[in-house]
This record gives sequence, structure tokens and C-alpha cells, in this order.
Amino acid sequence: MESTRFQLEQHEIPTHWYNVVADMPNPPAPPLGADGQPVAPERMAAIFPPAILEQEMSAERWIPIPEPVREIYRLWRPSPLIRAHRLEQMLGTPARIYYKNEGVSPAGSHKPNSAVPQAYYNRQAGIRRLTTETGAGQWGSSIAFAGQMFGIEVRVYMVKVSYQQKPFRRSMMQTWGAEVIASPSPMTQTGRDLLARDPDNQGSLGIAISEAVEEAASRADTNYALGSVLNHVALHQTIIGQEAKKQFEKAGDWPDIVFAPCGGGSSFAGAAFPFIADNAAGGRQGKTVRLVAVEPTSCPTLTKGTYAYDFGDASGFTPLMKMYTLGHDFMPPGIHAGGLRYHGASSLVSQLYHEGLIEAVAVPQLATFEAGVMFARAEGIIPAPESNHAIRATIDEALRCKATGEAKTLFFNLTGHGHFDMAAYDRYFTGELENYDYPAEAIQASLLHLPKVG
Amino acid sequence: MESTRFQLEQHEIPTHWYNVVADMPNPPAPPLGADGQPVAPERMAAIFPPAILEQEMSAERWIPIPEPVREIYRLWRPSPLIRAHRLEQMLGTPARIYYKNEGVSPAGSHKPNSAVPQAYYNRQAGIRRLTTETGAGQWGSSIAFAGQMFGIEVRVYMVKVSYQQKPFRRSMMQTWGAEVIASPSPMTQTGRDLLARDPDNQGSLGIAISEAVEEAASRADTNYALGSVLNHVALHQTIIGQEAKKQFEKAGDWPDIVFAPCGGGSSFAGAAFPFIADNAAGGRQGKTVRLVAVEPTSCPTLTKGTYAYDFGDASGFTPLMKMYTLGHDFMPPGIHAGGLRYHGASSLVSQLYHEGLIEAVAVPQLATFEAGVMFARAEGIIPAPESNHAIRATIDEALRCKATGEAKTLFFNLTGHGHFDMAAYDRYFTGELENYDYPAEAIQASLLHLPKVG
Repeated sequence: MESTRFQLEQHEIPTHWYNVVADMPNPPAPPLGADGQPVAPERMAAIFPPAILEQEMSAERWIPIPEPVREIYRLWRPSPLIRAHRLEQMLGTPARIYYKNEGVSPAGSHKPNSAVPQAYYNRQAGIRRLTTETGAGQWGSSIAFAGQMFGIEVRVYMVKVSYQQKPFRRSMMQTWGAEVIASPSPMTQTGRDLLARDPDNQGSLGIAISEAVEEAASRADTNYALGSVLNHVALHQTIIGQEAKKQFEKAGDWPDIVFAPCGGGSSFAGAAFPFIADNAAGGRQGKTVRLVAVEPTSCPTLTKGTYAYDFGDASGFTPLMKMYTLGHDFMPPGIHAGGLRYHGASSLVSQLYHEGLIEAVAVPQLATFEAGVMFARAEGIIPAPESNHAIRATIDEALRCKATGEAKTLFFNLTGHGHFDMAAYDRYFTGELENYDYPAEAIQASLLHLPKVG
Repeated sequence: MESTRFQLEQHEIPTHWYNVVADMPNPPAPPLGADGQPVAPERMAAIFPPAILEQEMSAERWIPIPEPVREIYRLWRPSPLIRAHRLEQMLGTPARIYYKNEGVSPAGSHKPNSAVPQAYYNRQAGIRRLTTETGAGQWGSSIAFAGQMFGIEVRVYMVKVSYQQKPFRRSMMQTWGAEVIASPSPMTQTGRDLLARDPDNQGSLGIAISEAVEEAASRADTNYALGSVLNHVALHQTIIGQEAKKQFEKAGDWPDIVFAPCGGGSSFAGAAFPFIADNAAGGRQGKTVRLVAVEPTSCPTLTKGTYAYDFGDASGFTPLMKMYTLGHDFMPPGIHAGGLRYHGASSLVSQLYHEGLIEAVAVPQLATFEAGVMFARAEGIIPAPESNHAIRATIDEALRCKATGEAKTLFFNLTGHGHFDMAAYDRYFTGELENYDYPAEAIQASLLHLPKVG
């Protein structure tokens, strides 16, 4: 029996994050202000600490991971790289399938990889409070956990409908000591205005972001933390791919293709970016690695969106970012992979896609749950709905390998477990889950509202 | 920074389970039939396969773990031994605290350690269907997972009130392909009789056991699986302590005291029994290890029960077992640690306690949740309510060490995560959780119904 898991020792946790900017053919398109001019980092200093702003703008290839961050990482990292022998057998494929299990973190996903350094850098800058927003609760619980690790108070604005429907993610945040507020709330001007107009407003991620940013901007002791999209978040997540590369060396193998779910882009960046360093240097073991972002057909940002400057949030509060977008006021259908319901994608991911260094594919909801159940029955782990997107694309490729007889090495990012998503599996089994068509008309309408730039 | 995790390689998974019977001062008291005579193993052959019956009666010290079982174990084993540096700092104790994280299994607890070999031995004996019962769902989901691994159909009789109130554990079992039936059900004579008398019967673990056993006994293709109490279950769980001993050797440390939650006894046996081998041989590194079973004050089987022959189930279907018992018709208060709501304890655990080889302590519910929250805030992981009992006892000892200045090494079994128990944490935070007094009168009344033997 060949090995199933490739485990690193704790001292093998990477000492540096990898900054893909150093290996991009062109410098990243800068964020722009409402005036069409690049946004100076100082303008963001009201809500982000200096170290984060520096990382956001950095072109250095290697950024050292502070020892106190590695100390917290050691609570669950290195995460295992696992060879999915049983899934291969179930599919009857000659492909070799590996996955990185990021569900082993306390919060159950890859999100703490960035929440921990964000909490650390804020604490280092003397900040004792953080605000953030959360929809389904993955990011909120990660920052609640990370805040607790560094003695930082955390207030999470949680979209009201989720606050009511997903009480267990809320309890998780409270267990780590965070304060969870249903958004819109009376805590902010944004919230008060909305509630005055409609006391029954159920909230949205855009509103929750506005509340969290408003509070952080107006209190000197409070900063704001974001869980995806931005460059520093992508940077922190590269710990995933950096570890995976060491583990593939131990396995004596190397991926032909990397698959990761892609919403804002943090999990894709984490798994895929470190392989761009090798591709830029001509490949390794003679291979150039294909890097495939997997998104929902109902929210097909990269595969069907437009590459343009757009707002990062639904309400137009953020700077303009050059990215693939479906239009900032596009409201994605209610798929269960809440982490992929985002109108845009990270600027870095978008530019790499635009320049042909990475690929993208879209998969429909029912096929992702079918893949997730196959995976659970073969490998035991019940995956998060977001992860099911990467699993679907991996299985599709493994079946192509079966047809052609090619023994490719496939690697996917298992971004999290599905323990808080069992209601979605329930709906899948009872046939209540919808597939959602490609929402062409809604996207066309939304793209008409792209901001004018320059 | 010292190491946090002590990880074994996959080839270091123990090759044998440890059978504590070989090191007991006296042979185990045999199970008795209604006639007061020892039960012949053949009488159990209708519901258990030969290999399981052989293990149930064996006095061999080492029982080899079949390779196909180790192959499935490798999906999550070896589980990590973790040094709880941050908890030590939070407590300000000179004690060194370690825990074994059994929550990393697909089902989220230590239960698959026995579910996997039970499924394997049944499959080997040509059995294609298993029945079992489950209350909160930990054992049911473990046998659902294990059945899926070996191509065995699983039917789980789930206590009706849990079936309705805990839909997510049910979805988990269905994800692994198991059929989940609300008990009492129309599937069995037991169920039909009960429903005829009261169509709204909400079920109990005793009823669910009766239904599962009735079906297994009446179908040649179907066997039954039990998740605790019996000798073979304790045997399988010793993988926990066997691994831990190897990990302590790597850590260059050795426990002074082992704490594990104790309901039926499977998690305590798993963590503690392997140290009895060392104690019997005079200790290691000059230490005799204290082994402490931790139970709820509201269900204080070892600390307040009677050592006597009693039924293993509430309804009197099973053979009589010599054990500490609160009386088989004692109904424990509704604490959230469902896995510890059992009137008796494993015969082996009971005899070892009676003969002074192990200790026991009882802790109240609110104190266990307080301990679980402290642990989550220090170490990140949110523990199962059962595990919180071991954490409470460990913290109490660590605080005694703080008072005396002793640098003891404490080891506890983190039996599972609390992802499906967040409603209990919620109730703890809102102050709705009850402490429950020691139910002295109910226990006295129940002990009056102990069966007469011999």
C-alpha cells in the first residue's frame, strides 16, 4: 500500500509567503479612486495597519512570515497533502489525485491563513479592535479565532438573514469571544438609515461591509479586516501551495493541473500562485503546471465576466479595482457555496487570467454536490460546497484521463469541511437543490452599470 | 518555541491493538444469561461475526490490526498529539498539558476507531448489511462512514427526538449512504408494538437498540454493531493510547496522569488501557501513570454506582454484565454530553476501577462548558461536550499544580469536535444551560430494580 498522507514536520512550515507580483509579466493594475487616479496607500491607513498596506503594494518575491504567526499556524499547520487512492479507484482513472486538506484549521477552512497574520499585524500596530463582515460565517469565524489568539476584540457584522438562519456559525464566533451583530444594525449610520427606511431589511454582504468599514474608519482604536480579493490576502494564502510543493517533493510527484474554487480568489491564489514561480522558471520535473480556477456557472466571473475597473463591493464604497466582474450590482443566485457568490475576482487572479497564465472553468451546482458526495463516500471527508467545485473539475479531468489513458497528476484545494453546510446536502438528497442557469440577462444588465474610468 | 504537535508517520500506525485483559490481576467477570450461567459466544453469533466474538473473549495481549483496517485508519490516523502551550500559559500552570485530537476523523470523533474494524470483520464474514442505533449521532455516523468504506449497507435506528432535532447528523449519515430510520419505527415488532400503544412515542436509546438487534437477529444477511461498552470496542480504541505512547517518546515526556471522558467507556479505554501495560510492568521513566475516568455528576456511574450484574440496555434485552451501574432503568438528566448519558460502564473499565487500577472523578455540566470555552480560546479547537469533561478535570489538576508548583505532565483524550454541538454552546452563553444536581433519589430507586443473579 502506497502512502496516503504526506505530512510535514512543524519546522517545515514555510518561513516566507510567496508574492506572485514578482513573477507577473506586467505590474499589477493599481486600484483607482473616484477621481480615476491611483489610490495612495496612506488613504487606507484609517482601516489597515502599515504592515498590511506594505504587503498590499509589495513587489518583493518573498515576504517573511513573523514567528508569532507561525506559532499560531502550528496549531493546525502544516496541513496534510493526501493522495486520494480510494477516489481514484472509485473513478477507475489512471490519474493520480491529491488534495490539500485546509479543513483541519480550527475554523474549518483556509480562511485563518490570512486572519491570523491580519490579527497579528493589527496588534503589532497597537490596534485592539477589529471589525469585519461575514455572510455564511467562514471569514467571521476565522477572524474571531485569530482575534482571540492575539488578544484583539472582534466585532462581526453578520448579514441578518444568515444571523437568523445559521446560528451555529454565530455560536462558533461567540465561543472565540467575538461580538456578532446582525446587519443592518443600529450601530452605524449606514445601518440606522437603512433600518429607518425598512425595519425588516434582511441585510446583504455589501451592507455588512459598509457597516464594518464605517465603524473602523470612525474609531482610532479599530481597524477593518477583509477575507479575500486583496493582494495581502492572496499573499497569506500562499502558505497552502508552498507547503504542497514540499509535500509533492516528498511524494516524488508533481502536479500537471491544480484546481481550486474561485470566488474572491483567496483559495485559488493560495493553492496556485506558488506554482507560477516554477512555471515562470520553465517548469519543474519538465512540467509546466496548468492552474485552473473553478467557479459556479451561476456566478461565472472569470469565464463570462468583463475585464474592467469596478467596485469591490455592491454599494460602491471601495476603490475601483481592475478585475473580471459581472458588475458590482449583480446579485448572484442563492447557491450554497456562499464563498463563491461574488461579482468580481481578485485583481491579481484577474490579471493572470487576462494574460493567459491561468485558466478558468465553470461548473453547475448539482454537479458539484454530486462530486462532493462521491468524494465523501470515497475519502470520508464531507467537503464544503465551495470545495465541491474544485472536486467536480478534478473528477471531470480524472474521467477524461480514464478515456485517454493518461496518468496525469491532479491536485486540488480542499478548502474546508462541510460540517456547517449539512442543510445544503440535505436539500441535495431531497431533490430540493436548484441548478440555476447561467444568468445572462442579469449579468448584461449589471454590466451596464460599470463605473466610468478616466 | 518548543514543538506543538507530535506527528507520527503513517507507517508508525500501531500494528496491534492492546488487550488489557492480559494485564488484569483477575480474569474478567463473564457476561451471564438470564439463567445466571455464562453466555456462550455462539449465542451471540446471530448478530456478531466470528472475529468480533473471538476478540470479545480473548486474553491475548496483542491482537493484530488487519491491513485493510490500517488502510482506512490512514485516512486520518495517526492522529496528532498536541502540546497545549497556550492553555498552559492561560492557566499560568507549571504543568505540561498534552491532548490527543481524535476529532480529526471523518466522523469527528474517536468512534470510527472501532466502527472501521467492525465493518471490516463483518464484510470478511460475508455480511452485507449492518444495523445499529444512535442517539445524538456520533456512533451512527461512524458506522455509516465505516460501512461505506467496505461496501456494507447500514441502517441506523436514530432516537426519534434526535432524528427531528439533530437533522445534520442525519444528513451526515445519508451523505455516507446510510439509511436512517426514526425509532420507534414500523420496521420491527418492537417498534410496531410501541407505536400501536403511542403513535407519538419519541423513542429512547434502549428502544433503538432493541429495534437494531431485533432486525439483525432476524435476518441472516444482517449483523449488529455496538459503539461502546463491549470488550472488542475497548480493544479497538487502544489505537489511541498506543499512538500516544509513541508520541510521548518522541516528545521526550511521559504522562503522570491520563484523563478521558467516560460514558460506556470506549474513549477512556482507548486512551488509558495501553498505560496499564506499563504500570503492570512497574512503570516507565520511573512513573506509574494515574488513569482517571471523568464522568458527569448527573450520571456518576463509577463514582456513585454499585458494582453488580445488570443489563447493558434500558429494557433488559442484553446479557447481564458485571459493572458499575446506576440501574438499567435510570434515566440520566438531559445533559448535552449525550455520549456520557449511560447507566453503566464497560465491564473491563468497571473491574479495573473496582480493583483500584484506575480512578474516577465526576464534574458538573456548567464547569465542563466553562472548560471547553477556555480550551477553545487558548487552542482554537471547539471540543465536543463529552471531551469537555476530560478538559475540566485536566484544568482542575493543572490549577492544583499551579498551587503546589508541581510540573506534572497531564494528558487528556480530546474525543471529538463540537461542530454539531453548537446549540449547546449557545445555551451555555445565554445562561439557559442547567447544571443538574446529583440525582440521588432517582438512582436509589433505579438500583432497587437490579436483576437478581445466581
